[in-house]
This record gives sequence, C-alpha cells and structure tokens, in this order.
Amino acid sequence: MLVVFLSQHALSAELKPGRAVEPYWGDHQGGISTPPQKHTYFIAFDVVSSKREELIELLNAWTLASAEMTAGPERFDPKADPNQPGKSSGAAVGLSTSGLTLTFGFGATLFEKEGVDRFGIAKKRPEALVDLPGFTGDQLIPERTGGDLSVQACANDPQVVEYAVRRLARLANGVAVMRWAQTGFNGDFKANETPRNQMGFKDGTLNVSTKDAKAMDKHIWVGEEGPQWMRGGSYMVIRPIRISLEHWDEMKLSFQEETVGRHKVSGAPIGKNKEFDDLELKRTGKNGKPVINEYSHAALSAPENNGGTEILRRAFSYDNGIMHINERWPPWRQLVTFDAGLLFQCYQRDPRTGFIKLFTKMAQIDMLNQFTTHTGSGLFACPHGVKPGEFIGQDLFS
Amino acid sequence: MLVVFLSQHALSAELKPGRAVEPYWGDHQGGISTPPQKHTYFIAFDVVSSKREELIELLNAWTLASAEMTAGPERFDPKADPNQPGKSSGAAVGLSTSGLTLTFGFGATLFEKEGVDRFGIAKKRPEALVDLPGFTGDQLIPERTGGDLSVQACANDPQVVEYAVRRLARLANGVAVMRWAQTGFNGDFKANETPRNQMGFKDGTLNVSTKDAKAMDKHIWVGEEGPQWMRGGSYMVIRPIRISLEHWDEMKLSFQEETVGRHKVSGAPIGKNKEFDDLELKRTGKNGKPVINEYSHAALSAPENNGGTEILRRAFSYDNGIMHINERWPPWRQLVTFDAGLLFQCYQRDPRTGFIKLFTKMAQIDMLNQFTTHTGSGLFACPHGVKPGEFIGQDLFS
Repeated sequence: MLVVFLSQHALSAELKPGRAVEPYWGDHQGGISTPPQKHTYFIAFDVVSSKREELIELLNAWTLASAEMTAGPERFDPKADPNQPGKSSGAAVGLSTSGLTLTFGFGATLFEKEGVDRFGIAKKRPEALVDLPGFTGDQLIPERTGGDLSVQACANDPQVVEYAVRRLARLANGVAVMRWAQTGFNGDFKANETPRNQMGFKDGTLNVSTKDAKAMDKHIWVGEEGPQWMRGGSYMVIRPIRISLEHWDEMKLSFQEETVGRHKVSGAPIGKNKEFDDLELKRTGKNGKPVINEYSHAALSAPENNGGTEILRRAFSYDNGIMHINERWPPWRQLVTFDAGLLFQCYQRDPRTGFIKLFTKMAQIDMLNQFTTHTGSGLFACPHGVKPGEFIGQDLFS
Repeated sequence: MLVVFLSQHALSAELKPGRAVEPYWGDHQGGISTPPQKHTYFIAFDVVSSKREELIELLNAWTLASAEMTAGPERFDPKADPNQPGKSSGAAVGLSTSGLTLTFGFGATLFEKEGVDRFGIAKKRPEALVDLPGFTGDQLIPERTGGDLSVQACANDPQVVEYAVRRLARLANGVAVMRWAQTGFNGDFKANETPRNQMGFKDGTLNVSTKDAKAMDKHIWVGEEGPQWMRGGSYMVIRPIRISLEHWDEMKLSFQEETVGRHKVSGAPIGKNKEFDDLELKRTGKNGKPVINEYSHAALSAPENNGGTEILRRAFSYDNGIMHINERWPPWRQLVTFDAGLLFQCYQRDPRTGFIKLFTKMAQIDMLNQFTTHTGSGLFACPHGVKPGEFIGQDLFS
C-alpha cells in the first residue's frame, strides 16, 4: 500500500493536512471510510457508446489514471512530445497529492436504460440498486439527477479535485458525456471536532465510526448477500439540498435548536450539556411533552427510532453563489437567493434499509424541511476496491 | 493593528496558512495588496432603497461587521437571547479567522442610474470611474455584470468567506439585493512559487510587487489626481472568464506554449530557461520571425508593449461544475462543457490607462482568446481604507 505521511505531520496537526497520499488499491474503494477531505468534485456521466468493450476500456483507463493520480503529486513528463497534448492539464504540478481519493459508482441506468440492456449486464443488476422512490417535497431537477456512472474526487485542495475530474472526463471522450456535477467543501475544523455546517450546528455527531470495523461491516459494506462485484462495496446516495440560509438566519435561536433537537453552541441534545450525551428521547418536560421535539431532525434520524438503521454520512457543503427565483404561487415572490446548502451523501449496505427507510418518514415530518429543498438525486452502486492488474467493477463484466 | 501569527507558523510554512488575522483599519482596504488567499466570494449588490441615509447606515453596518469578522474567529455570544436570531449563522464558530479580508467598491450606477441621482453623489463620480467599453468577443451576461456595490471576502477557508458574505448580505436586507456572485479558489501552491492556473501555466510571473511601495503608488493606488475619498483606494475590474478547458487540453504542448509565450514546465519565456528571465521580445529565430509570437499572451500584455502600463492582477480560479450549451450556428453543436475558468480581477490607479488600455488590443488579437470567453464584468471604485469611527466611503457622503 502506498501510504506516505507529510513529514511535518506531527507538528502541524492543527492544520489537519490529512494524509498526503491515501491508498488506492485495496478491498474497499477510497473516499468512503476515508475521513472527509476539505474539497470534493462529484460528477455523473451518461454512457453514449453502446459497445461493451468501450465501456470496459473506459473503466480500465479510469482505474489506471486514478491509481497514478492518487499515488503522488502530478509531475511533468520530461520526455513529453511537444507535438502531442499532455495527458493532463498540468494544473496540479507543484501541488501536494492532498489526500486525493477517487470513488466510482454505477447507476441503475447502466444496467438497463429505456428497456435496453446496452452492455449485457441487466441480469446482474442487484436488487438493492432500486430506483429511488419519490419523496415528499422532492423538487428534483432532471439535469441534476441520476446518471450511468458516478465519479467523485475528494482532496484537501480544490485545484487537485478539479484536475483529477478533468483528466477522467477527458478519458471518457466519445464514450460517456458529463450529466451533472457539483463541487463541495468542508470548513477547516480541527480533526477531533465535529464540523459545523452552514446552519451553524455541529453536523455528524451521530455517525457510524469508520474505525469500528464491526459497525462498518454491519451497516456500510455489502456482504455475502450481494453479488461478488459488490462485496466490500457500498451503495451511495447523493442529494444536493438547497438550504434557505436567509430564512434560517432570521429564526430565533430557540426555534433553531428545537428544529435540530440539539443546542447550537455545544451540540448537546436539548436539555443536556455535552455533545455526545445520549439523546434520551423519552425525557418529558413539566408540560408532559418530550424535551426533544419528536419532529426534530435529531429525534427522527436517531437509530432508536429507525429500528437501529445506521448510514455513513459523508457530506460536504456546496455554494453555487446566488440564483434567481420566480414563484408561480402566492405571494408570487420574485427574489434572489443563495444557491447553497448541503451536498448530502451517505453510504450504506442496502439503500432499502438505509436511506430510503430513514428518509421516507423524515421527508414528511422533519421540522428541518421548512428550510431545505432536495434539488437533485442519485443512487450509485460503488463496487469493491481494486487490486493492481484489475479495473474497477471488473467482475461485473466477467 | 491586529496582527496575529499562527503559533506554529515557523513550523508549517509549507502549508502556507497565511496570517490568521489581516489588518482591517488602515490607509488602504485589505484584500488588495494582501497576498491572495485560497478562497474568495465576490458579490455585487443593487441598492433598492432610494434613501441616502439608509445607504449610509448600510455602509456603517458593513464597516462594523467587517471590522469584527476580520479581527478574530467567530464566537458564540454566551449572553445570546434565545428569543432572538443570532447576528450570524454560527457556521464559522471553531474556525480560524483564516486571513479574512473584506473589500468594498462602488459601481458607476451608485452615482447615477437611468439618469437619476438617487443618493446625491452624481457630481462626485470620478472621471476614472468610466463605463467599461464593449470589448471584442465579450459575451457578457447581464445577470453577471455591473452592480451598485461590490463586496469581496477572501480567506483561506471556504466556509469563512461564505459566513462573512452571508452576514453582510443579511445586513443589506431591505436596502440592497444581491445581483451576482462568484466564488473562486487558488491551489495550495508554496508561498515562494508562482501558482499555476487551470491551463497548467504559471500565472502572475509579471505582476506589480505589492512589496514595492513606489510601484504600488505609481500604478495601483489613486493619488492626488483623485477625489479625497479615492486617495489610497484603487479601481477594480472583475471578469469571470470561462476557459474552454476541454479544448485547451487537446492542444499540442508546443502550441500551448506559443499561445502563452512561455514554456509550460518552467514558466520561462520561450527560448529561455528561467521563469523570471527577461522576455526580450525583439529576439528573432532563424526564420526571421520573433521567438515569442507577437500575438502571444505574454507579448501582448508586456509593459514594454503597453507604454509601461502595469496592473495588479489578483485572480482566482472558479469552477461552477458543468453547463449545457446549444450553439445556434454551424455546426450547431449541443454539448455539455465545464463551466470553469478564471475569476479575473485587477486593481489599478486608473482603468483608462490600466485594464482598458491593455485589454482593448488583447481582446482583438491575443491567441489565448481562442480558449476564453468573458461572461461577466464589473468596474468598482474601491475607496481608501477606514479608521476606527469612520465607515467605508465616508468622505464620499460628507
């Protein structure tokens, strides 16, 4: 395994550079149990070729390029032929590898699209790779939804994720076209601290610990129940969620806390002092009502309210600047609003018992829904990791 | 002056955290001669109030909020009233100040809009605050052009620039509305190294040195020729420039180098070895032609070809993901392309002898134009810095 630590790692822990090089080859793909980097670039592709061998060739090329890009900094080839284009833009020459991971997934449409089995894999579509149901409140934009293939670059440098995606997109020329993309970021919080999201609350206090191999096997990695190519892989749901930040910022602190079910400063459950204190959802106040509102985000997402369901959230914030809105209903507002929010992302062993189970109810009654709009969506089967000599998803085609 | 260095500064120079706190009060606004941070959030506003006192109140509120936000990390107010909204989202609590600077500017329309002198300052419009002429090739989108007021947050953390802009935008409620916005970034290059842009070339080799006070006074800061409120200020041009990255990446290395006028690896002028070697534009090859193509970007932008004109470039890359293009001319291409490029930005003492002089010719014949499209534009008069007790632009209103 290629694992190199920054030489000054011990000295600069507060700056949290992360590992300069994350392992690429292995049982699992990188970018899933990897601690979230500071930047991401997610992109979905549609395959336009109908030739199975061209798809395989692309997956091969993506695997080799990914192995190279994640193994070390970009370097100019001193023997580069001036009469040829370079294999890459060169935009990352001089930059650290910045913990780059590249994670690939297959959408349901890769297996069958409009009734056509383009690549002879329709029979191999796993049952768990369902079509996501429509959820209450969905306002999905088709151009931000679905896709045959997903690619996600994560690294601690925005220029590195972009260079990596550009190189992979170029390798897809003639075989796949870009369908939708979204960049994202995380603030530079300390490694031992739960990051705050754009709403100002700590986000991710309750999450599967990626260090807990048992929990990861139970909730995140596909096991014997899945086809060979998915064992050690995981199902990924991704949803750009616009947050009405202007609206949220005008809310009273007490209402924000009731909505989330936690205190803003400490992240502790309502009525408690410490972030990791038990929710104790059955606590009632003097008025006989639950201390933590039963429609709050924390209550509704708690494993104890969902038959023990746990997913691995691996979210980033996104910020596309501003957007113009023309409402066609009373009071017919025309306004300019921030186009920013959460690039929600989660991994699970089975989306039917993971995201779908959790979110069906939350989409209906979570108090937080007053401030959030899901504008895009994707579900991708991310196969197990690759060994040298293989390509990503290889045993799906064998 | 509030200047605090990160305690581990000496140890982690390679990670270039920059100063945690940049000075706010002073002769010049921050964010101009400040070394470019890693992240930016530019936003232009239109004033919707026609009351002079409301505009002044906004500038006052922006000044105070900016002084507070740039002086140190965001903190929760322990005495915050739970029945009131906070003054900020809280999204930056726990983050370093990250070298935050906030820079304000006034567009021509603030002085007079559609013939109306809304704020009684039409007569104070400086001659240098011209309406930018149309340039060859401009494809400006009105919703990404102009604006009465400009605000730019720069910091080394994307969450910090966003939190700052959100707080300022909220203070503008009822007085000004957001017109256009663009975020940007720089790769984490070493402090002593010229950064590479998305084209893979070193960008900014020839730039006014912000450490050279004489050059800054000569080329960048407005002097006695300007009105009092602009003395020590500067004129800022900002242009989102989409770069056809896919097209560029397919070009031969030799053609890329001819276009730029420099070698890609070293950044040296064509035919030379070192980045900072003189261009020597008069050199000719065996064929009698100039070694550096006279239509190359380097040749056309060189001070020696522009009567000594120099501007302070302070650019960021931007990446909005992808966009769909439908061309209405042969060969009627429908395609998906990256919506990414340069958030070009420059400061100068007078745009007529700065950007306009330089770019008029370049817009016509720069070889680089084959790959670039200017999609937005703004020119803003950025007044001198503020002292405690003053507000930004105060002597424009006195």
